[in-house]
Amino acid sequence: MRKISEECGVFGIWSPERKPLPFMAYYALLALQHRGQEASGIALNDDGIIRYHKGLGMVDRVFNREELEKLGEGQIVVAHNRYSTTGMPIPNNAQPIVVRHSKGNMALCHNGNLVNTYQLRTALENEGCIFHSTTDTEVIAYLITKERLHCGSIEEAVAGMAAKIEGAYSLVVMSPTKLIAMRDPHGFRPLCYGVMEDGSVVVASESCALDAVGATFIRDVKPGEMIVIDGNGIRSDERYCGKTETSHCIFEYIYFARPDSVLDGISVHHARIEFGKYLAKDHPVDADVVVGVPDSGLDAALGYSMESGIPYGIGLLKNKYIGRTFIAPGQEEREKLVRIKLNPIAETVRGKRVVLVDDSIVRGTTSKRIVRLVREAGAKEVHMRISAPPFQNPCYYGTDIDSREHLIACQHSVEETAKIIGADSLGYMDLGHALEVVQRNCPGRGYCTACFSGNYPTEVPPEGAKSRFEEKIRKEKS
Amino acid sequence: MRKISEECGVFGIWSPERKPLPFMAYYALLALQHRGQEASGIALNDDGIIRYHKGLGMVDRVFNREELEKLGEGQIVVAHNRYSTTGMPIPNNAQPIVVRHSKGNMALCHNGNLVNTYQLRTALENEGCIFHSTTDTEVIAYLITKERLHCGSIEEAVAGMAAKIEGAYSLVVMSPTKLIAMRDPHGFRPLCYGVMEDGSVVVASESCALDAVGATFIRDVKPGEMIVIDGNGIRSDERYCGKTETSHCIFEYIYFARPDSVLDGISVHHARIEFGKYLAKDHPVDADVVVGVPDSGLDAALGYSMESGIPYGIGLLKNKYIGRTFIAPGQEEREKLVRIKLNPIAETVRGKRVVLVDDSIVRGTTSKRIVRLVREAGAKEVHMRISAPPFQNPCYYGTDIDSREHLIACQHSVEETAKIIGADSLGYMDLGHALEVVQRNCPGRGYCTACFSGNYPTEVPPEGAKSRFEEKIRKEKS
Amino acid sequence: MRKISEECGVFGIWSPERKPLPFMAYYALLALQHRGQEASGIALNDDGIIRYHKGLGMVDRVFNREELEKLGEGQIVVAHNRYSTTGMPIPNNAQPIVVRHSKGNMALCHNGNLVNTYQLRTALENEGCIFHSTTDTEVIAYLITKERLHCGSIEEAVAGMAAKIEGAYSLVVMSPTKLIAMRDPHGFRPLCYGVMEDGSVVVASESCALDAVGATFIRDVKPGEMIVIDGNGIRSDERYCGKTETSHCIFEYIYFARPDSVLDGISVHHARIEFGKYLAKDHPVDADVVVGVPDSGLDAALGYSMESGIPYGIGLLKNKYIGRTFIAPGQEEREKLVRIKLNPIAETVRGKRVVLVDDSIVRGTTSKRIVRLVREAGAKEVHMRISAPPFQNPCYYGTDIDSREHLIACQHSVEETAKIIGADSLGYMDLGHALEVVQRNCPGRGYCTACFSGNYPTEVPPEGAKSRFEEKIRKEKS
Amino acid sequence: MRKISEECGVFGIWSPERKPLPFMAYYALLALQHRGQEASGIALNDDGIIRYHKGLGMVDRVFNREELEKLGEGQIVVAHNRYSTTGMPIPNNAQPIVVRHSKGNMALCHNGNLVNTYQLRTALENEGCIFHSTTDTEVIAYLITKERLHCGSIEEAVAGMAAKIEGAYSLVVMSPTKLIAMRDPHGFRPLCYGVMEDGSVVVASESCALDAVGATFIRDVKPGEMIVIDGNGIRSDERYCGKTETSHCIFEYIYFARPDSVLDGISVHHARIEFGKYLAKDHPVDADVVVGVPDSGLDAALGYSMESGIPYGIGLLKNKYIGRTFIAPGQEEREKLVRIKLNPIAETVRGKRVVLVDDSIVRGTTSKRIVRLVREAGAKEVHMRISAPPFQNPCYYGTDIDSREHLIACQHSVEETAKIIGADSLGYMDLGHALEVVQRNCPGRGYCTACFSGNYPTEVPPEGAKSRFEEKIRKEKS
Repeated sequence: MRKISEECGVFGIWSPERKPLPFMAYYALLALQHRGQEASGIALNDDGIIRYHKGLGMVDRVFNREELEKLGEGQIVVAHNRYSTTGMPIPNNAQPIVVRHSKGNMALCHNGNLVNTYQLRTALENEGCIFHSTTDTEVIAYLITKERLHCGSIEEAVAGMAAKIEGAYSLVVMSPTKLIAMRDPHGFRPLCYGVMEDGSVVVASESCALDAVGATFIRDVKPGEMIVIDGNGIRSDERYCGKTETSHCIFEYIYFARPDSVLDGISVHHARIEFGKYLAKDHPVDADVVVGVPDSGLDAALGYSMESGIPYGIGLLKNKYIGRTFIAPGQEEREKLVRIKLNPIAETVRGKRVVLVDDSIVRGTTSKRIVRLVREAGAKEVHMRISAPPFQNPCYYGTDIDSREHLIACQHSVEETAKIIGADSLGYMDLGHALEVVQRNCPGRGYCTACFSGNYPTEVPPEGAKSRFEEKIRKEKS
Repeated sequence: MRKISEECGVFGIWSPERKPLPFMAYYALLALQHRGQEASGIALNDDGIIRYHKGLGMVDRVFNREELEKLGEGQIVVAHNRYSTTGMPIPNNAQPIVVRHSKGNMALCHNGNLVNTYQLRTALENEGCIFHSTTDTEVIAYLITKERLHCGSIEEAVAGMAAKIEGAYSLVVMSPTKLIAMRDPHGFRPLCYGVMEDGSVVVASESCALDAVGATFIRDVKPGEMIVIDGNGIRSDERYCGKTETSHCIFEYIYFARPDSVLDGISVHHARIEFGKYLAKDHPVDADVVVGVPDSGLDAALGYSMESGIPYGIGLLKNKYIGRTFIAPGQEEREKLVRIKLNPIAETVRGKRVVLVDDSIVRGTTSKRIVRLVREAGAKEVHMRISAPPFQNPCYYGTDIDSREHLIACQHSVEETAKIIGADSLGYMDLGHALEVVQRNCPGRGYCTACFSGNYPTEVPPEGAKSRFEEKIRKEKS
Repeated sequence: MRKISEECGVFGIWSPERKPLPFMAYYALLALQHRGQEASGIALNDDGIIRYHKGLGMVDRVFNREELEKLGEGQIVVAHNRYSTTGMPIPNNAQPIVVRHSKGNMALCHNGNLVNTYQLRTALENEGCIFHSTTDTEVIAYLITKERLHCGSIEEAVAGMAAKIEGAYSLVVMSPTKLIAMRDPHGFRPLCYGVMEDGSVVVASESCALDAVGATFIRDVKPGEMIVIDGNGIRSDERYCGKTETSHCIFEYIYFARPDSVLDGISVHHARIEFGKYLAKDHPVDADVVVGVPDSGLDAALGYSMESGIPYGIGLLKNKYIGRTFIAPGQEEREKLVRIKLNPIAETVRGKRVVLVDDSIVRGTTSKRIVRLVREAGAKEVHMRISAPPFQNPCYYGTDIDSREHLIACQHSVEETAKIIGADSLGYMDLGHALEVVQRNCPGRGYCTACFSGNYPTEVPPEGAKSRFEEKIRKEKS
Repeated sequence: MRKISEECGVFGIWSPERKPLPFMAYYALLALQHRGQEASGIALNDDGIIRYHKGLGMVDRVFNREELEKLGEGQIVVAHNRYSTTGMPIPNNAQPIVVRHSKGNMALCHNGNLVNTYQLRTALENEGCIFHSTTDTEVIAYLITKERLHCGSIEEAVAGMAAKIEGAYSLVVMSPTKLIAMRDPHGFRPLCYGVMEDGSVVVASESCALDAVGATFIRDVKPGEMIVIDGNGIRSDERYCGKTETSHCIFEYIYFARPDSVLDGISVHHARIEFGKYLAKDHPVDADVVVGVPDSGLDAALGYSMESGIPYGIGLLKNKYIGRTFIAPGQEEREKLVRIKLNPIAETVRGKRVVLVDDSIVRGTTSKRIVRLVREAGAKEVHMRISAPPFQNPCYYGTDIDSREHLIACQHSVEETAKIIGADSLGYMDLGHALEVVQRNCPGRGYCTACFSGNYPTEVPPEGAKSRFEEKIRKEKS
């Protein structure tokens, strides 16, 4: 069950010929919808002219055929799905950001969070810059623009900008003639590229978006690498590669990414199966059926079943028609109406000892409800297994985890938590084992585990900086 | 994969006190959304005053908080999800139908199709009746109204009407003071009822809607039974029960109903698991993994895996963000873009011999695409198993099956079909075994298998009657 | 200033060839928008197929290019603007009403109110008829349908229906092949027809709609006349002509109709100028400027100026951007904010003795505000002249006049009224003189003056019938 | 008839207490709607927090009650109606512009056009500024921001900015605590202020907006004056006053402003009456009736009638229901359908010699149609009188006049023009007489007459600068 805010999805195509690329971008955004559902946008470059459309809401709310047709044809397109990890959902924060600067038009799409935004923004304001949004992305746009004044090319300006920012960024930039993709040296957020039969080059947050548009996956963008695509082909600039150890976000594998994506060489589905197997090894239990909480607990449940030999069962049905516009019942009815979104299949759990596998516990309230549902459907025992280690720390790289005071794992022991959620037993994923899974074929590769371990791979913003900035942000709303 | 038109979902509540019942109806309609996605509506009875709202589109398009609040409070509510099995989606065809007649207001919701509509409608027209819609339901409304002129009560009028109509009907009627539920003597379409803690009585097409509103399932409405609910309690009228053998639609178990529903005493999920087991027995194959086509092939795939011992795998991911407003690619792109809706998880199928389980094959085009997807993802062999017998006949009871000329099973042998869809082997469910599953605990109970067997439990409309009527219908559109 | 509910506008075209007639209907509805702003609709007959679209709201809300194009081409079109004189604005009450009956499809548009609706409706209900709306028009549809069962043609059925209904009706009926226009024998509401260069025949409530579509006015439909238009030409059926004295609604000239229309041979603009002249003769005053309250007081003000020799001035400006969606200020601000809709031009009235001409006083509150506005802008004296006699009686023929208890003319003498609204003097139009104006060129022609005189040209509904029926109506709302 | 693009309307309130000011702004925007119909916006300052809403379309499309309520209460509000005189209607160009800079939030509203935009913008871009819109207003925002870095207050920063810009600007600026209104030293565009009973101070483009919110007009803002309003009262800064001769736009009196407004001491209605009188003196004709083309020709027609003694008539009716969403007929139908928007009242013109008074002739096509309409309605002669001198030059100060090649007055003599539009005679307003009218009570005051005379009161942008910039602008569209 989704209990954590998603982040963003970025996408871009460079095509050797003028084409109705916004349609391709639309299909790609649908494939990346799980990464952000608050706003979406597409910007097209038609011979130096940028046309764009963006708005609050999911892709199919923001775009219809007419809007896509109005964007027309061009050679480059960039697109973005947004989940606002900073501030409120306001129209000005939707991406791509499209600006005009001294050397022409530019559009930017960004996934991730910088850790030195506040300093950079203050410095820019002190030079007389004005901000229309509250996003990191507008800071990046200014830095590129300032660099561009004395750089010979947009790619040099992007490289110059990269020397100044720190934190997580998977970035797609469109200039009048180029498509540029850049990933921060830590490689926090995923970014990959592929090619199409007609010679088009496609960049995307996840490989599933390449699949959606019929592109063939070539490889991940390397941490620190900048890829420049234009009429002269694809060039790689590795000047920032290897400057630091990589720290890929391990939570992408646990929860964010789509199971059919392959990130940095590792299949998300495979990783989840393996997480489930370790869960079975580390937290075995005598039971009759293993049930995954849809959608993101299903893979690990299957892994648990494989390893333990306990049969896999389909025991919870998620109502797929409940979307963002769902009118939730009032508090007093909510207790009764838990089964609107998720209904147990009594046939599967009745009279059984059930292993229930979910991807995370945040506050514990959802888990408590699900355990009760399964019990009411007749389960004799409910053993909860979580395919992630306990959340105990904030993330500064683009994930919106609840504050410590609400995180059940910060307040309670595993035993207490089991009691609170009403489970007969509870087992979390062991962080070491999780790392083992994602390092198996690439020994020594670094991962960011800060939300679990508290080990931050970068300096983090000064205490309170974020909240002070967010207080300022809070003050504006469209 | 859904390739067949759904039918409708009906729902009603009688409450001992005035309450904001439209919210409950909204939750129930969301639970029944799979039964019809073309129109939805809710009608509330507030002390004899009927307020209603209905429209084209899925529940969350037609209703928002404001609309639900405008409907207000009352003691009775009826609601409907529609898939137009006859004619085009036109606003006038949305239900509930609300009419005023000599004895007050009335609202009707209907699931099923009559087989003598054309005769009844012509007779009514010849008496000077005018029709605003093209639905069977307006015919039923007239018949009840005419009966009511000389009957002492609405329930007598409904009973009188029932003597005249033939075919499939699960009906919910709201009068100024009563909620009436009636099911045709064959019991084609499901209908059940339950109670809530506060004494409310709830009727619904499937038990999952009772779960959604927190009601406790009491029992199915019997074939031919009429249930009358008002301030005097619940009364059952069985005058039409036992008049004929039952013929529950077997396809409800295969495809229509939600797996967490229990229809006429049989869990849908359980039935599908059992169908999968028989598939494994009847069509065994040497393979490495069993993959279900989401969503409706998953249960049978699990059953196949259980029986065969071949591991169950999650091998296809369905994009859950693609809804009714999806802008499909043009024909020439479609071939490339098959992976927007459904993407294989290569990890699961690569290098494997795959058993692919789906619920049905209609024209074969979708199956062909899925088989190719799985092969392109690296499967060595693809063995298709279908948890339904071959479709070969039209349905006159509320299901919109393609015409014979398009049904691949009418045109080709199993071997030819396998070749056409590109599968290494193909196996259909055996009808006898399917019946065995649903009769196991209720020997001798009758099922309608007409779409597979051609054995119709009623007279069917004269050849061409439907198409002639639909030609007339075609002529109007809002 | 509009203080009285408008009624309806009807329109139809028969064309010798298939054309995109909905666009013509759209222009005509815009020209008739002043007659009804609550709902509008267009129904097209394309070789027997009726396609229609209707909805709540003004024409430009209900229709856009896409909707008009979807209706397509055909040979007959009918259209309607509605102001609901009975019951609430509910979607089901929008016209045209489109029904299917024993002899095919039919669409109806109606302007006026019947006086024997309640009896007719009850009789129909007692025969088993069901009603989807609360309009007279559905009653008329049933009556035509019943007649059609034993009549050889639709025109005979319409004639048969006309024998049964009483009251005000200007009716446009579309059958699969014919366009029929009929006006009640009293001729309460206007109806006229014209021809276009391509041989099309056009019927409309007012001649301004003929102008809008480029048709040449031929003549008014006579009271009691039925006009039948089809491939065989135009036929007139006068069987009901001369059955009774005519009683054209005099209030059409005072207020309802557009000044550029000519009704039953009399120019509305001319009539209003003449009303103003009589006002000057009957209620002279020593003043400096004559100011009309826009829009409907302007013509009479000009007439007053002509007759009196007092200069005509433009002294009040109406904000033309304030439409139906205007968000009115709360009660406490309203006093301050009177100038949003209407602002005095101080230049015109400052230091002057002003004759202020308006078309009517209903409750007196609007007049009071306008008088104050003009005084605050510097007028020394304000003399109110009303180009209608005092309202004192309800209308049963399609106008929604306030109830007697609210009519200031029922409660107060002219002198009291002048004091209440703050005018230095007040003069109403003399009914005899008003009749003189509209009878000048057609001596002896009868007019309905019931709202002023209480002389009803027909029997009126039994006391309370309307309110009892409206109570029933009140109980339903979509 | 409106044939020329409008410009913009600005508005602001400072209130001593927190209030729901957005509602007041909404009423004011409705009063200023005639100045711009392409976009509108409101920004509220609630204790330093700025909340805003803006969008494309007229006020009643962009705002509903919910949006106004969401903006909430505050002490300062600014609002804007926009007609895009530069570039296309794109959402980013809507105002108020709301930005965050080093010293907090700021919102700006601007009416007018700068003549040194291109230089300023290029200089800013060369310092690394990025632009989100194509408006002058964003340039102004940057200049204020840059000044603010080294100025002690926002008003000093605004003054500093004013030293750098040239051209037409009536500006309203909102800082966290202040409302600032400033008018350029030429006084091109109007700007005035007033007070309310509760001590609020209101600034607006025209006095009619003060009337709309119940404020009492105090005086016009002087050319070059800056007014600063905050908790310490109202301060006037006249440092730029008298730096140059004034050059009020004379076209405001002829066409732009509302007749009930008083601009720089002159009633617009009065000026138009006087223009009409001079027209009668300069271009007398023997005729029977004087008819104004609604709405903006009515006042001058009345003046012509007064001076000439020829009776004033109401001879053309404008359909007030035709708004921005009107679906225009195709070219071939347009000739026939001229009477949709404007219909002659035949009664007034039939058999008469008509003096037709309109406010301007641009291309001549509209005038040609109107003359034909009046002739077809039976006029014997049509004498056209135009209450403006001939248009012959572009405007650089905020008015969007057609290019010279399309201006009929640049291509043809008066006699030729009369022939082209089909008039029996044609007379334009004499520029000297027009100036006499607006200078009568303020001798020596300067007016901008550039569009008529070609005498520009400032340097104008270099040849082609505008079109080159607009070419760049053209390249972006949302």
